[in-house]
Formats: sequence, structure tokens, C-alpha cells
Amino acid sequence: MEQRVSLVTLGVRDLARARRFYEALGWVPGGGGDEIVFFQAGGMIVGLWGRDELAVDSGVEDAGGWGGVTLAQNVRSPQEVDALIEEAARAGASLVRPAQKTDWGGYSGGFVDPEGHAWEVAHNPFWALRDDGTISLDRPA
Amino acid sequence: MEQRVSLVTLGVRDLARARRFYEALGWVPGGGGDEIVFFQAGGMIVGLWGRDELAVDSGVEDAGGWGGVTLAQNVRSPQEVDALIEEAARAGASLVRPAQKTDWGGYSGGFVDPEGHAWEVAHNPFWALRDDGTISLDRPA
Repeated sequence: MEQRVSLVTLGVRDLARARRFYEALGWVPGGGGDEIVFFQAGGMIVGLWGRDELAVDSGVEDAGGWGGVTLAQNVRSPQEVDALIEEAARAGASLVRPAQKTDWGGYSGGFVDPEGHAWEVAHNPFWALRDDGTISLDRPA
Repeated sequence: MEQRVSLVTLGVRDLARARRFYEALGWVPGGGGDEIVFFQAGGMIVGLWGRDELAVDSGVEDAGGWGGVTLAQNVRSPQEVDALIEEAARAGASLVRPAQKTDWGGYSGGFVDPEGHAWEVAHNPFWALRDDGTISLDRPA
């Protein structure tokens, strides 16, 4: 199996609400329609799809809440973390962890989207965040 | 918010077991240690971390099962879907959906990793899968 992820699909209870949230954050759908929405996200894709349908398609039982997956977006400075956390709150996210210094030497905060999906916003000075938005475990040059 | 994901962290109950599974699929860790494992995955990173710790860090209650997030890896042919599904089974995945033609014109199957995280393996002839493994909503050339 190649070491990559093509698609992360977030199951949603209200597709219009979920779409509005990500659009309020500035994301622009690149495909899909009334039943599914796809966002081009760098070299991969983020999808929004009915949670019930996704559970059936995935062959799993839905536990009904958070299920052990958290997404993160890394940004270029602590100030950008603060700004993005505030932007998410304005867009309707729940702020669950104030932005603060972390014990691993970075700075991060957390929000939960209107569908219950958890995001971290982080500045990690030990990972290389390139101009094109891709990130690498290599130390920054 | 930029339209990209830097990190997908999968909460795990048994880090050694989870690491063995992804290593059996050919993934090679690029960082972390005894408490967390990071895999470089194209232009983003996949992490494995204790599920309890991830829940606390994410500011959420753990519903205990699948929580509405499914990952996918797209490959270049239906035959590659079959091969990867078989590889996942040998590595210890549960096969929850046999590989088959889909109603959207592709071919896909599904597995669940030993920690309960759902994956789809898909051939989608309508998305451009580039040589470097990145994927685009654009039609293939």
C-alpha cells in the first residue's frame, strides 16, 4: 500500500450546514452536488457525505459521536493559529481547546466543526511547511 | 483557512498493534516513538496516537467506535483495488465490503483496520491520479 491518503470523507448529518461551515472558512467546493461535496485539499480531497450513508458504505456501525480521528492544519506562526481559531469560531465551530503553547514545543488550539469533527490548528516549528502547503516530517531548512 | 489538511491522527487502543498493521502494509514511520508514530503520507502526515489521549487533546468525548470519518486511497486500476484489499486482509484488516463496481462508475472495496478505522480502496476513472500519488478532482488528461 502506498504511503498516502487520497480522500478523507467526513460524515455529516446536515450537508448544507456542513458545506456552509467550510465555505465560511473560505473553502470552495470543486465537485459533488446535493448529496456529496468534494473539496480539493492540496494533493488530496476532503469529502462531505451523509453520515448514515457513509457508515453503510464503510461497513461499520456508527457509534454516534467522535470516533478516534482528528484532523489538523498546520500554519506558519502562533499568530496564524490564533487567527484561524477565531475564524473557525466565527464560522460556527465550537472552541474546545484555547490556543496555547504545547508540551512538545509548538503552539496549537482545537475546534470541533458543527458535525462533531475535531480539528487542531497548530504551529509546529519542527516540521517543514512548504510554500505550497504540503508538510514534511523533515526539520525546516 | 487554507484548503488543505496537514495531519490526520488516528486514535488507537494498542499503538504497537496499529503500527504493526501499517508497517505490514509497507508503511515506514518517519517520526515519533513509543507514544506516537508519524508516517509521511504524500504532502501530509498520518499519525497514530493513544485514543484516550487524542480525545482529551481534541476536547471531545469518545463515542467508542466509528465516528463518521472514512479514509480512502485511490489506485490506478480495479486490479490494484483487488490486490490492495487482499494485502490489507493479510495484514490483519477486517474486510467489510468486497471489491466491486460502484454505482458512480468506479470500482472499490472497504476494510477496517485493527483499531476500527475505516478505509476505502478505490479506482475512480474520473479523478486524475498523478504519478506522485497526489489526486485531483480534475478529469484525467
